[in-house]
Amino acid sequence: MPSTIRRTFVVAASLFTLGGASLGAQATPLASWNDGPTKQAIMSFVRATTDRSSPQYVAPDDRIATFDNDGTLWVEHPFYTEGVFSFDRIAALAPQHPEWKTTEPFKSVIDHDEAAMEKFTESDLEKIVAETHSGMTVEAFNDVVSSWLATATDKRFKRHYTELVYQPMLELLSYLRENGYQTYIVTGGGQDFVRAFASRVYGVPRDHVIGTAGKTKFTYDAHGMAQLLKAPEILYIDDKAGKPEGIHLVIGQLPRAAFGNSDGDKQMLQWTQSGNGRRLMLLVHHDDARREYAYDADTKVGTFSDSLMADATKQGWLVVSMKRDWRRVFPFDP
Amino acid sequence: MPSTIRRTFVVAASLFTLGGASLGAQATPLASWNDGPTKQAIMSFVRATTDRSSPQYVAPDDRIATFDNDGTLWVEHPFYTEGVFSFDRIAALAPQHPEWKTTEPFKSVIDHDEAAMEKFTESDLEKIVAETHSGMTVEAFNDVVSSWLATATDKRFKRHYTELVYQPMLELLSYLRENGYQTYIVTGGGQDFVRAFASRVYGVPRDHVIGTAGKTKFTYDAHGMAQLLKAPEILYIDDKAGKPEGIHLVIGQLPRAAFGNSDGDKQMLQWTQSGNGRRLMLLVHHDDARREYAYDADTKVGTFSDSLMADATKQGWLVVSMKRDWRRVFPFDP
Repeated sequence: MPSTIRRTFVVAASLFTLGGASLGAQATPLASWNDGPTKQAIMSFVRATTDRSSPQYVAPDDRIATFDNDGTLWVEHPFYTEGVFSFDRIAALAPQHPEWKTTEPFKSVIDHDEAAMEKFTESDLEKIVAETHSGMTVEAFNDVVSSWLATATDKRFKRHYTELVYQPMLELLSYLRENGYQTYIVTGGGQDFVRAFASRVYGVPRDHVIGTAGKTKFTYDAHGMAQLLKAPEILYIDDKAGKPEGIHLVIGQLPRAAFGNSDGDKQMLQWTQSGNGRRLMLLVHHDDARREYAYDADTKVGTFSDSLMADATKQGWLVVSMKRDWRRVFPFDP
Repeated sequence: MPSTIRRTFVVAASLFTLGGASLGAQATPLASWNDGPTKQAIMSFVRATTDRSSPQYVAPDDRIATFDNDGTLWVEHPFYTEGVFSFDRIAALAPQHPEWKTTEPFKSVIDHDEAAMEKFTESDLEKIVAETHSGMTVEAFNDVVSSWLATATDKRFKRHYTELVYQPMLELLSYLRENGYQTYIVTGGGQDFVRAFASRVYGVPRDHVIGTAGKTKFTYDAHGMAQLLKAPEILYIDDKAGKPEGIHLVIGQLPRAAFGNSDGDKQMLQWTQSGNGRRLMLLVHHDDARREYAYDADTKVGTFSDSLMADATKQGWLVVSMKRDWRRVFPFDP
């Protein structure tokens, strides 16, 4: 395995330049956004909060923007990428666990029994997460995720998952940073999973990634050297009400702008809106089956419910129509 | 109470300039450090890790320095300041809790019964922390701490607690930042307590303060507005083995340099040293009874045990003698 990891790292290194063009300073901000009310509202917010002569001016220390990841920055359909990683990882580890051939939920994963996997319970998934996300040092987990991302590809687009990021959102991240905003990721996904690629793909450093976190355990290796192991227990779940709680834990400050795409982001947007002064709340609506996907409440991932849409209308949250508002969806789009 | 808070805020605002001189760029770095091996070792580490032509050069993204707070950046003797705050707060809340007059541990605190308070158990202290650190919004707690810090004074020095910070360590924080290091506080004390003053006093922003954290609870107020309440349960304890665990949770990266003063910092220093390349591990030794305090293992707070001193010698950690290495201790020293 180590030599495989080393080899795939070389591949990973060659991908480092991929996002480069999108992360640099933009001659024209938000170039992949179509002109219209959504783009205008974003730019108006940034101008009003960064122009010193504006009554809505926000000091640089208070310019905090938080972004959901799955479905907001990269594709989450038809499965969360971290779920695909976990299943692939079970298959990769299976030779070391002969007992899995006859033990659920591992047997179904190894057999690619999709009907059985569809019916996995919370407890089944917890067992899979524990086996795939713990029992190694934090550095080893980072290497495992990096290797997987460098090789695995999505079935529909035949692309690496880190290529399936939304070009307009990459531009929005850059545009906010160019205007003095600190950009954070606030994901229901695993914090250490997203940290493995957030800097390279989104320009977001490791300490700006907030996610569902497992406990870690400080210990010593066989040579008496200090090390930090990933433990199988969850410390906190960074989803729904857990998002404002996670933001307070790591940032300690109310965001000025928050970006999401599903019911799991509602509380983050509500909390952002609870502060004084100008705020921006935005939801990405997946309504573009041709270029990406169209889904609302009829999905197992990232549900955008009718009730969320009603909230958005009532509270004045921006709703991005991918179909209408985005000139390009992916960096590789023409 | 709100008007009192408002008033003390004005006082607090007038203190904002206090640390100013110490936080700006330094014409002479580490001016309050006496020349000698300790100062030379610190400067040698910084030069070696920031000079591009050095074989020990460290890229800016990896320049992470972590500082303990109690006894490393400010006075912890004879009591942790947060403990004094908690007892003062019980006294301030007592009129709203007539039952405390006859209920321990509150009765002893209200009666200033120091003999009884000396014998408080872990469970007693947990009750006091729960009453003083929860049941309000995160913003309200920040206001309470800010107000208290603006008025309370230390018995020996007759100074506000935020004045009892070590001038050489303020200079060290600035010196590291001027050389591209990100400086974090990693404290066994309450994260939200330290956040209330870290930016003003140390130049460390709220998202760079890692500490013992209580759970929070997202909810809605009577008007349906989102709010975040401090809950009475502990999420994690950021001390001893909890320090590397807290660093991984919030920063996600191994520090290059770590600074402490007690047995509670040992694991942070060990973990810092476990990485490749040049590292700096430093412990402040309180050996100056005249200007501050002299204490080792014979203390209820911040113990520097014989075993820690042996570790420092064996591992090559720097030990700062306050008496020998520091020209000045406090910003107000002549």
